Amino acid sequence: MNIGICGAGTVSGGLVRLLSKNEQLLEARIGKPINIVQIGSRNKPSQPEFEAFAFTDDVFEVAKNPSVDVLIELIGGTDDALALVRMALQAGKSVVTANKALIAQHGEELFQLAEQQGQQLVFEAAVAGSIPIIKVMRESLAGNEIGAVVGIINGTTNFILSQMSKPGSTVSFEQALAEAQELGYAEADPTFDVEGLDAAHKLTILSAIAFGTRLSFDAIYTQGIGEVQVEDIRFAGELGYRLRHLGITRIGPDGVELRVHPTLIDENEMLAQVDDVMNAVMVLSDAASQTLHCGPGAGAGPTASSVLSDLVDLCRGATIPAMGFLPGQAVDLPVLGIEQCRSHFYLRLRVADRSGVLSRITRILGDFDISIEALLQKDPVNDIATIVITTDQVVEETMNTAIQKLESSGDVLESVTLIRIFDFGE
Amino acid sequence: MNIGICGAGTVSGGLVRLLSKNEQLLEARIGKPINIVQIGSRNKPSQPEFEAFAFTDDVFEVAKNPSVDVLIELIGGTDDALALVRMALQAGKSVVTANKALIAQHGEELFQLAEQQGQQLVFEAAVAGSIPIIKVMRESLAGNEIGAVVGIINGTTNFILSQMSKPGSTVSFEQALAEAQELGYAEADPTFDVEGLDAAHKLTILSAIAFGTRLSFDAIYTQGIGEVQVEDIRFAGELGYRLRHLGITRIGPDGVELRVHPTLIDENEMLAQVDDVMNAVMVLSDAASQTLHCGPGAGAGPTASSVLSDLVDLCRGATIPAMGFLPGQAVDLPVLGIEQCRSHFYLRLRVADRSGVLSRITRILGDFDISIEALLQKDPVNDIATIVITTDQVVEETMNTAIQKLESSGDVLESVTLIRIFDFGE
Repeated sequence: MNIGICGAGTVSGGLVRLLSKNEQLLEARIGKPINIVQIGSRNKPSQPEFEAFAFTDDVFEVAKNPSVDVLIELIGGTDDALALVRMALQAGKSVVTANKALIAQHGEELFQLAEQQGQQLVFEAAVAGSIPIIKVMRESLAGNEIGAVVGIINGTTNFILSQMSKPGSTVSFEQALAEAQELGYAEADPTFDVEGLDAAHKLTILSAIAFGTRLSFDAIYTQGIGEVQVEDIRFAGELGYRLRHLGITRIGPDGVELRVHPTLIDENEMLAQVDDVMNAVMVLSDAASQTLHCGPGAGAGPTASSVLSDLVDLCRGATIPAMGFLPGQAVDLPVLGIEQCRSHFYLRLRVADRSGVLSRITRILGDFDISIEALLQKDPVNDIATIVITTDQVVEETMNTAIQKLESSGDVLESVTLIRIFDFGE
Repeated sequence: MNIGICGAGTVSGGLVRLLSKNEQLLEARIGKPINIVQIGSRNKPSQPEFEAFAFTDDVFEVAKNPSVDVLIELIGGTDDALALVRMALQAGKSVVTANKALIAQHGEELFQLAEQQGQQLVFEAAVAGSIPIIKVMRESLAGNEIGAVVGIINGTTNFILSQMSKPGSTVSFEQALAEAQELGYAEADPTFDVEGLDAAHKLTILSAIAFGTRLSFDAIYTQGIGEVQVEDIRFAGELGYRLRHLGITRIGPDGVELRVHPTLIDENEMLAQVDDVMNAVMVLSDAASQTLHCGPGAGAGPTASSVLSDLVDLCRGATIPAMGFLPGQAVDLPVLGIEQCRSHFYLRLRVADRSGVLSRITRILGDFDISIEALLQKDPVNDIATIVITTDQVVEETMNTAIQKLESSGDVLESVTLIRIFDFGE
């Protein structure tokens, strides 16, 4: 199989090295060689591993190259990448991509084009690095009705929250971010990761495969970790929770939940043990029950491993529907607004330290039929007391109305801090 | 696709129910129906889900039935099952099996027969229930050189050790086993699980796929959990370890380690968080690094999920080499005896409480170049002191010789208790 690689960055380097290192192994597994016939990149790469191959500074040349059977799109972004993938498919090539933004935003069009051309567009590396979550959902769980997918799908935010969550830590978000940047786990401009956009692209893809619905990136709710306070991590820890930046997609009678936000989970859950830059995705389904898949979510090796698994599949002639369901079988399920989602909640309130305050607060929650699961009252500082409450499951709209009522009650001195809690048993 | 199911037990029932419940979903995913045309079982099943289908009490009839395209072997054992699978393959049918013993002991012959017949013999359900570890290794990690596979691959032993390991637990092996039997997690005759044979079958399969070697069930080292003492779980816990019954296969310059035994691992490892009847398999490879896959390892739903994933693959026309490597590419790697394997070790010694004993013991270890990593000395009871030592990595043969020396030293009053420690970083 002859491949052309577009992009000459970290992942491309990893792929070129892996193809060379494991050449014999691959031939024993698939029976034919994978040959790199051309590498395209706007800037000529300086890494020595690229030297042996024909190079062009026009990536579109690779899409036009008649000796390329499969184009590997690793240039990123959604402008040139979109044009490039379109051109390759139109030229009768299959495409392997690691580009989550491209799939989340333009997948519908591109899968249709691939189908028309009798080609494949595959993207295992687009979600969660080395974790084969696309294959697991499209193939291994194909006999299951999937109810929810919940995952730690961004290594940068997980690293930052892990640093802030260490026992006794007083590390702030800003300090943890600076450390992540020093270690190369966060970009100089970290917006894309810490505001949750990267995770939102990935979750959009996972949701569509899980439920056979359309890619609904425009409808996803996304909240980053920039506002997370160490204090809340500590209080929630006292109540047996850990904070993770989760992507959650779940199907219910009224539609699909599709949301990325800081989330508290029981400290005994496996996802609570996934630290640092590791990724992990849990799938809840009717027959397999709960299966969890963990691994490094980024980096040259892990991402190249997934790109190569797609290439191996193509070599072996597998033809799996791109999103797990046959063309024409996807349905247009409504995506619920965050206000319609049900969660348990963690609330932190600053209140004036005067008599009867706790009873007035709990009465307001009671008026909205919100049951309290646990309550922590911290000693007052300068006559301001801190109260932490976790609640039973309730629709977020109701919780918001109750919070408005609390904030206008006279007892509550600052905006109430709210963190959603996810319960895997529900 | 027309299937015939042999066996009418728990897993068959789960499969029949799953095919019925998710009929539409499956058709949206694969584009054609999966029809059950015959069910065979020595004893007529009483469960109502089987009533709708043609039944025979001669399983071999299913293998001869010309309308059956794929035979599902769920009768278990290795006598009739071997004859049945042979007959089905010879009759030009592909076979899906959940039978780990059959694959571990007769896989070589059967895969060859399948190859000759142009049929497939697939077995995702044979290892670790719902966890798609066969697919992950054969396909998702196909571009990787795999270095080791380490897993909790028997739910019964993991449940028993979890019960014995609970904080403050004094539950003995016998008590935990009785509880497992009450809950249906252990058979009336639990030998197969607690002595490690079940795990040995599974590990044999994983090892062959990981390294492209032959199925070497006759060479595996297997130690059960019947001798595990709560006391050692507690002492090891004080040193930061948890006890798990692990299957470990690892490749080195001299050959393949292939061993199932109680093993101490760092309490911060993900595998240390896998409790009760859950299974988990970690694969260590060159590009993907460490990936971990967890899920329920047994039960009607999880096993049926994996059987059905194999069926879906067959419907979609995938043809993956049975053991991940093309026929003729498997090599005959030597399997190391347990004495040749390198481990860290945990030792518990009962010694006479007299002066200089610690220095004499550590000197003996030093004579064998065995470095001590940690040491616990417990207060003597009736002039007998307990010493717990963990060591650096050493070849087991050397450790055995050192232990003989210790036991004949006059200070050591009982046989030394030895538990292997696995370090994921090495």
